[in-house]
Amino acid sequence: MAQKPSIPKGTRDFSPTEVAKRNYIFSTIKQVFETYGFQPIETPSFENSSTLMGKYGEEGDRLIFKILNSGDYLKKVFEISDLRIYKDIKSLFKKIVSIDKKNNFDYYGKNYQESIISEIKKDLKFSFYYEYIQDDNLIKSLIDRFKLYKSEDIDLIVDDYYKKYLSSGITRITSKISEKALRYDLTVPFARYVVQHQNDIVFPFKRYQMQPVWRADRPQKGRFREFYQCDADVVGSKSLWQEVEFVQLYDDVFSKLKLIGTTIKLNNRKILSGIAEIIGEKDKLIDFTIALDKLDKIGEEGVAKEMLSKGISEEAIKKVQPLFNFKGSNQEKLNQLQELLANSVEGTQGVNDLRFVVNAVENLGLQSANLELDVTLARGLNYYTGAIYEVTAPKNVKMGSIGGGGRYDDLTGIFGLKDISGVGISFGLDRIYLVLEELDLFNQVELPKPKVLFLNLGEQEATYCMKALINLRNKGIKSELYPDASKMKKQLNYANRRAIQFVVIVGTSEMENKKFTLKNMQSGEQQTCNLQELVDITISL
Amino acid sequence: MAQKPSIPKGTRDFSPTEVAKRNYIFSTIKQVFETYGFQPIETPSFENSSTLMGKYGEEGDRLIFKILNSGDYLKKVFEISDLRIYKDIKSLFKKIVSIDKKNNFDYYGKNYQESIISEIKKDLKFSFYYEYIQDDNLIKSLIDRFKLYKSEDIDLIVDDYYKKYLSSGITRITSKISEKALRYDLTVPFARYVVQHQNDIVFPFKRYQMQPVWRADRPQKGRFREFYQCDADVVGSKSLWQEVEFVQLYDDVFSKLKLIGTTIKLNNRKILSGIAEIIGEKDKLIDFTIALDKLDKIGEEGVAKEMLSKGISEEAIKKVQPLFNFKGSNQEKLNQLQELLANSVEGTQGVNDLRFVVNAVENLGLQSANLELDVTLARGLNYYTGAIYEVTAPKNVKMGSIGGGGRYDDLTGIFGLKDISGVGISFGLDRIYLVLEELDLFNQVELPKPKVLFLNLGEQEATYCMKALINLRNKGIKSELYPDASKMKKQLNYANRRAIQFVVIVGTSEMENKKFTLKNMQSGEQQTCNLQELVDITISL
Repeated sequence: MAQKPSIPKGTRDFSPTEVAKRNYIFSTIKQVFETYGFQPIETPSFENSSTLMGKYGEEGDRLIFKILNSGDYLKKVFEISDLRIYKDIKSLFKKIVSIDKKNNFDYYGKNYQESIISEIKKDLKFSFYYEYIQDDNLIKSLIDRFKLYKSEDIDLIVDDYYKKYLSSGITRITSKISEKALRYDLTVPFARYVVQHQNDIVFPFKRYQMQPVWRADRPQKGRFREFYQCDADVVGSKSLWQEVEFVQLYDDVFSKLKLIGTTIKLNNRKILSGIAEIIGEKDKLIDFTIALDKLDKIGEEGVAKEMLSKGISEEAIKKVQPLFNFKGSNQEKLNQLQELLANSVEGTQGVNDLRFVVNAVENLGLQSANLELDVTLARGLNYYTGAIYEVTAPKNVKMGSIGGGGRYDDLTGIFGLKDISGVGISFGLDRIYLVLEELDLFNQVELPKPKVLFLNLGEQEATYCMKALINLRNKGIKSELYPDASKMKKQLNYANRRAIQFVVIVGTSEMENKKFTLKNMQSGEQQTCNLQELVDITISL
Repeated sequence: MAQKPSIPKGTRDFSPTEVAKRNYIFSTIKQVFETYGFQPIETPSFENSSTLMGKYGEEGDRLIFKILNSGDYLKKVFEISDLRIYKDIKSLFKKIVSIDKKNNFDYYGKNYQESIISEIKKDLKFSFYYEYIQDDNLIKSLIDRFKLYKSEDIDLIVDDYYKKYLSSGITRITSKISEKALRYDLTVPFARYVVQHQNDIVFPFKRYQMQPVWRADRPQKGRFREFYQCDADVVGSKSLWQEVEFVQLYDDVFSKLKLIGTTIKLNNRKILSGIAEIIGEKDKLIDFTIALDKLDKIGEEGVAKEMLSKGISEEAIKKVQPLFNFKGSNQEKLNQLQELLANSVEGTQGVNDLRFVVNAVENLGLQSANLELDVTLARGLNYYTGAIYEVTAPKNVKMGSIGGGGRYDDLTGIFGLKDISGVGISFGLDRIYLVLEELDLFNQVELPKPKVLFLNLGEQEATYCMKALINLRNKGIKSELYPDASKMKKQLNYANRRAIQFVVIVGTSEMENKKFTLKNMQSGEQQTCNLQELVDITISL
């Protein structure tokens, strides 16, 4: 009868300590977002399927969690179910045979199929068919078959036709039983929000959003089916200052989290376009950057070999030779790129944009992060149109990127609002959590446990304690009364297991003298004090 | 091509202002929860269907949002689809006919059906059938039919059997295509959490949880398909002090929200049981309380009439006569109840419990709420076993309950952990929001907009401003640079539309003198200041 409780794979329960640590990260990011002038919005957990489907590629569509229509969705499934279709096909086929028998249409004539269809449409019982089929092609193929098969083959004909129908019908069935889907990221809902509320929004619009998203990905270490995204975006401005600001914002958040030594990698899509121009073929760009990224591991020769194997010409490899020795300061890198991309208009624009951002950041200074120009950075290649960001954890921690983002020139176009440029970044909460845990950077997080426990030694004593509790709580001191007048040992054990800092003991003598016995559970120290002293001591430590 | 963007009915987007106001309520509740020693937990948005289904009654099951299995769920649908089943039935039927022909089983013998089934099971091709059917009854009825019908009737037989199968198969199909469902409330996931993590939990466990829940209810004013619940519960103690504490907690939260004059209604399930004992029939209890609740509207006679019409005996009505004139202070009510329920053991226990809570609350005092004993309070009747709470808004606001809760003695029993008593309360965020809005109690909420806007008059000026911005932001002053060097009028218009308090103007002369021109947008006042003064002024106002 009783179920062994569990949760779906890829999801997590969070204990009080985990919630506190996660909230510490959230509130740090949130505070910085707001200090930089970003405003929060929230969107619903599920969107209309049409809002999400087709926005993340085929793989994305597959990974979107779909919600079953509520109510009598199953009735709908059966209404349009395959059995009904199968039977309809059978009777339709019989109808075709009978029409053919009754009329004397010329099978080899030009209009044979049309004549049959026209007869079918006259019969109300079969006209509904056009709801399914939408065009005549499938029916035509059924008519074709009718002459080729013998009538005994009716099951074969119907089966064959049914398969054909099915492959065109699955999408229709999905959309009938599911019209809503869980949010897959925060960007598409944000784009939808901007278009839907464009008349209420003051542009440039700086918004942040920290909400869970859901993906039906195969769960693995650090990858979950429900996880939070923390995004900040500006839409409605092409200003490079925004790109500068996001570098500062990353630096500010990670510095506040005491995560020293992160690297903010920076690139620009236009530089990648310039390189593509130089290597001659745009479609080789990803192969190119992947190979180039291996420079440290396989050396110049290895990279060249891999590029050749991917179809990049020897001539092209020669042209981009400087990238094989792409070292030095950001300024030196910029100078090399400027020379390399001198003949590409777009590439040169990219160098100028990057130079503006790099110069501004270097001029303004960073607190703890390193800024590194990285031409192999190509995340979301088909998506970003300008700046590309990625943040990596300090080198002593093994962890992929802990944040990323970039500029996209036509975010809201899919929803009909053209030419709104946006630039945004995202923080990878779960990975940041793991990094802070590994580096022991949660030690200052205040855990959500009471600071003071009043022992419960009986009804009168408890009443006395409850009065004191009101005073502590008014001062915001987390405190509680042990609910039952259990044995002292059990109550102290509770205090120890929860690592509560102070225990207050009230017996008859304390009540008579209007005092409290305060025990520091860490030091073991014990003292008698009045109410004011109790508040003062527990609030200060 | 472009879609007109919209969101599913019953869901909402929240604008920055709305998020800020909602967060003000959340953080007030959260702060009080933590001050009272409650710890946060979080559970996944979706649970295994088996965790949720059957916990909220038939209506609840219908209102739970189900999530389609990811990946090739449609393949699964078709694998077990009605067409396949239909065809399987057909071939199964043919199999039965051929088995009957080949063997010479005695149709009128005792084991005819079993013999056929045993033959079917020998054939691997048909053994899969038992996955569908699970018991032999359906197949037996198919075998029965075989002798009654002529073989030409095969379509009729299969159709008939198929209908029979279908009615037993729908649930199975649902569970094949959907194994997860969105959280319907926070209580069942909490019970699941407690059982699953019982070895890591220190009891009594005081937890709070503030997360969205989803219900496929018909949306209407104030009722949404996605909404937040804010729950606090203690499990593992039967102490009445907890029941006292929740009254204080309600009072504390609403006082902090400046919502003065709420009424905390209190009842006890045992008192309702006592009344049920007196009126003779337990199943009349709900009719009884509903009728009694109308006393103000329809008077004593009207109530008695309604009770009679519901089948409550005249004698019973006479017995509970005192409840018809149930007025006065809580103490007076308690005395009346004590007398009325003197012969009911459980009722008397209820009076004693209530008296303890009422006495303690009155002794300790409340800040702004009224405590009111209400015997008609019967929410969640089948659920609660002790205290029952409900909070109503101040009388000048038309709004139903803005909070409620109670004690349940066997919360975790459904998941196999017996005898864990719990008591908890919930805050109705959306209704509290509407009440605060109506009473204009959001006026102190700091909106998430920048306090200071630096105008952008060109690249050099912007650089100068960005340097100052770093200082303001380090002090936590929400501030930003207008991203583009647009016309001054456009920039000031932006500041006005966002109601930004201060604008900083930096031109050539300001840069030369290391000054800033600071304009107070409300007063129109303008002054020249240095960086330190800029920080000091904007931080203080």
